[in-house]
Parts: sequence; structure tokens; C-alpha cells
Amino acid sequence: MPQSPRQSSAQPLCAADLSPALIDELTTTAHALADAARKASLRWFRHPGLAAESKESQRFDPVTLGDREAEIAMREILARLRPDDAVFGEEQGVTEGSSGLTWVLDPIDGTRGFLSGTPTWGVLIAVGDASGPLYGLIDQPYIGERFEGGFGRARLQGPQGEQPLACRGPRGLDQAILFSTFPEIGSPAEAAAFQRVAGAVKLVRYGMDCYAYALLAAGQIDLVIEAGLQAYDIQGPMAVIRAAGGIVTNWQGGDAAQGGQVIAAANPEIHAAALALLQAG
Amino acid sequence: MPQSPRQSSAQPLCAADLSPALIDELTTTAHALADAARKASLRWFRHPGLAAESKESQRFDPVTLGDREAEIAMREILARLRPDDAVFGEEQGVTEGSSGLTWVLDPIDGTRGFLSGTPTWGVLIAVGDASGPLYGLIDQPYIGERFEGGFGRARLQGPQGEQPLACRGPRGLDQAILFSTFPEIGSPAEAAAFQRVAGAVKLVRYGMDCYAYALLAAGQIDLVIEAGLQAYDIQGPMAVIRAAGGIVTNWQGGDAAQGGQVIAAANPEIHAAALALLQAG
Repeated sequence: MPQSPRQSSAQPLCAADLSPALIDELTTTAHALADAARKASLRWFRHPGLAAESKESQRFDPVTLGDREAEIAMREILARLRPDDAVFGEEQGVTEGSSGLTWVLDPIDGTRGFLSGTPTWGVLIAVGDASGPLYGLIDQPYIGERFEGGFGRARLQGPQGEQPLACRGPRGLDQAILFSTFPEIGSPAEAAAFQRVAGAVKLVRYGMDCYAYALLAAGQIDLVIEAGLQAYDIQGPMAVIRAAGGIVTNWQGGDAAQGGQVIAAANPEIHAAALALLQAG
Repeated sequence: MPQSPRQSSAQPLCAADLSPALIDELTTTAHALADAARKASLRWFRHPGLAAESKESQRFDPVTLGDREAEIAMREILARLRPDDAVFGEEQGVTEGSSGLTWVLDPIDGTRGFLSGTPTWGVLIAVGDASGPLYGLIDQPYIGERFEGGFGRARLQGPQGEQPLACRGPRGLDQAILFSTFPEIGSPAEAAAFQRVAGAVKLVRYGMDCYAYALLAAGQIDLVIEAGLQAYDIQGPMAVIRAAGGIVTNWQGGDAAQGGQVIAAANPEIHAAALALLQAG
């Protein structure tokens, strides 16, 4: 498993330091990465010859040609357009940089969904500094949907055109919709904490991979709760959700940029209510 | 809950009786229904004003304007184009006919997914006679995907163009992918039967609604197992899966056209292997 990059750098950079020209360059680069990953992943999506092998012997964790080729395509673009930025990708790990900016890439989040032909996997891209992700994308190549957030933008481009992204307003937990990818959440203690929240909401749904975070940013659902995440699983979604007005923390209410136990919420009120249940054990 | 239509009729009709002109009329009508339902459902999909009310007090079973308007739109077309056919729809129940043909409609299968903004709900349409469904469609309006099967056709029209549908070939259960919509499957005995199969396969995924049947017909997965289905939940998928070479039965290996406990399988070998485990309790 690749190590998380060192977030501190010789040249720390704050969002306030970013010029409009640099912001434009970063967002343009992010879309170029997403375009390339979309092409590379779709080449293998639902392909009869798609072969999966297991990265770990313990559980089924397939690495496909789609993952590998999508990350290679994105790294080639970064080497050309942003050679001084650091890169942390799921497949190839860390490439150090000198700019103070780091790209965090998950070429295919939801590889099991990808292998099953579902349209709910995604390409996750974030760019950030020592403070965490500043801007991110969730791209669903098959549907042709791109959820984007940061640097003052929060929008969806999809089959119905372009729309602003905005998380939904507060409501009681008994009116909330909660998503998580697997019904079996992490350790027994983590599963028990999740079940305290699951038992209090109106509706629990599973199996959506990163698409659940996109639905939160789009104002469709209230909560996503997961455990055992990696930095590349959450940094893109975190940027999109924050830009849409939502909150992403760990189960202690602290920074979730390095993954682990993550709760994403549509607003502070429902975040507080769910966090209280997660911690009630 | 609406009653299932009487499948026997004053004028029984077999597939062999259907002329090429009638087959053409039925498939053209089915696509017109799907087009109308697509338009009606998308009008409400991810709409901020979407209101859900509960049909049953016991569990959350939302009826949305999307469901109702999509069924009304389909019934208007049938009244005009096929006035002598019977209609059985989820929302409005049974309209008797005299032709020996019955249309079975689920305007939005996966209403919980629809309400959550996921792209895995679908419009289900089947037309059949006393023997069961002869032809069916699974339409996913947001993605713009239509899975169609029967009368010698088995094809997908979607964002990547048109492709034939064909279920995948035999493999061991330990290499199989199993889908089901809810991790909590029916009664405790049904859940135990499901878990016997779930424990034997490579990968289990949840939350895809009718999209799981489409993935089976498209050769992406091996098994879908569910309990408590209605006729309108399964007749469209049954026609599509059979046309793609798959098998749909109840858990006893008998006819599943009226719903209940359903197993859909990519081929006879994996059907037999999974059925043996379902019945092993």
C-alpha cells in the first residue's frame, strides 16, 4: 500500500497565495486529467477481456488495466503541465515535488463496481497544499458526469447540462438519507457506531462507491459514513463537498484528509447529530 | 397493493401467433412507452421540490410524482395504440383487456434510489400472454440506457451506442458476482438462504435496484437474488435476461413471472449451483 505524501513542504502555500492565473492553470489541468482518465477507463469498462488480479490475498481488491492506464495517463499530463507539483496516486504512490502543491489521484474509485459494470465508480482528483485539498473533481465517465468544487466553483456538468452544486439544508436524522459503500463497515466497533446512525435515519443505501459523495454535494442525500479510507479516496470528494457547503471530518470531528473513518454531511446540524451517535458507544 | 392480473384470457395467445407486423407494433409501442416514461420521470429526478409520501405505514415506500406521471403517460399511449390489451401497472393496478396480451409496467423501479438521486432506478416494461412476458425493456432515463429483449432481439442502446446483450458463460460460484438490492433479504429464513449463496461467491454488491438485472443481461455479473418482488418488478427484466441467454426462476426453480422469491442467473450451470445453496437449509 502506498504511503501518504508528506503534506508539509519546503515551500508551504496557502490558498490565499494562489493567483487567478495559477487557479485557472490548476482547474484546466484537473479537467485535462479527468478527460484522460475518462478515456483510459472507458476503454476497459465492460470490456469482455477485462482481467482482475488481487492486490491483497486477504480480500478481493482488484487492480485492472483501467486503473493502471488511467493513472499513467494522468501522470503523463502532470509531468508535462505541472512538473514541480507532487503527485500521490493509488496505483503508483508518491512522486515528490517542490511547488508546495500535491495532486491526489484515484484513477478508479470503486474498482469492484467497475468490474461489475455499475455506473457508480469514479475518477477522483484533488489538488491541495499543506492545509489539505483546495479543489477537486469526481468524474463518472460512463454517464459523462463531472462534479467539481473549490476555488469558488461548485458545479455539475452532466447529461442534463450544467448545474450548481449545493448541499441540502438541515433536517432531523429521522428524515435523513445515509449512504455507505459496504454494509459491513470496518471493525465490529466501527460497525456498531455506524449502526447507531443507520438505525436513526429514514433511509440507508449501499453500494454507490464515490458516487455517494457526489450525491451529497448535489443536495440529494444527507450523510455518507465510511471507515478504512485512504487519502486518495476522500480528498477529491472533500473538496467538492466543502465547495457545495457540506462538511467532511473524521469520526472525532477532526481532519479527514488522510482518510480513515470519514463522515461527510450536508450541513453542520446533521453532522453534529450523526457525530454524537458515532461517538455514543 | 394492486392485484396481479389474471393471466388466462378468453383469447389465449402464444408467441407463435404473433405476426411480424404485430411484433413490430408491440416493440414500437414499448419504445414509445419508455420514451414517455423517461420524459415524465426525468422531470422530477433530482428536482428540489420532489415530495415523497408513504404508501404503507410499516416501511418507507415512497410514491413520487415521477412514478405517477410516468405511469399515466404510458397508460395514455396504450389506450391510444393498444386499446384492447390489458394493463397491469404498479401505481394504478389492473385494466382488463380482450386481446390476450398484457402490458406489465413499473414506472420507476427503485423509488428509494430515485429519491436519493442515484442513476440505478429504471422504467420496467413487459408485454406478454398467458405464458408470461414475451418482450421487455429496462430503461435508465438519466444515463440514457435502454436494455431490450424478446422477439429475437437482445440489445443495449446507451451512451456508447448500440451493443448486443449476452449473459456471461459458466464459472464456479467462487468466481461469481452476486447482486441484491437490500442486504436484509426478506424473512430470516430467506436471509439465511441468501447468505449461503453470498458466502460462496467472489463478490456481493447491493443497492442497484433493477439495474442489477440489466448488468446480468449485459454479461457483467452472474447472479441476482431477491425476495418479496411483485410481478411488475420482474417481468421486464425476465424478458431481457431470457433474450440474452439467462434464466429467471423462483427459488424452487419454477416460474417467477408473478414475483416473490426470484433468482436470475447468467447460465444454467450457475443457476443450478446457486439454487442448490438456496434450497440447502
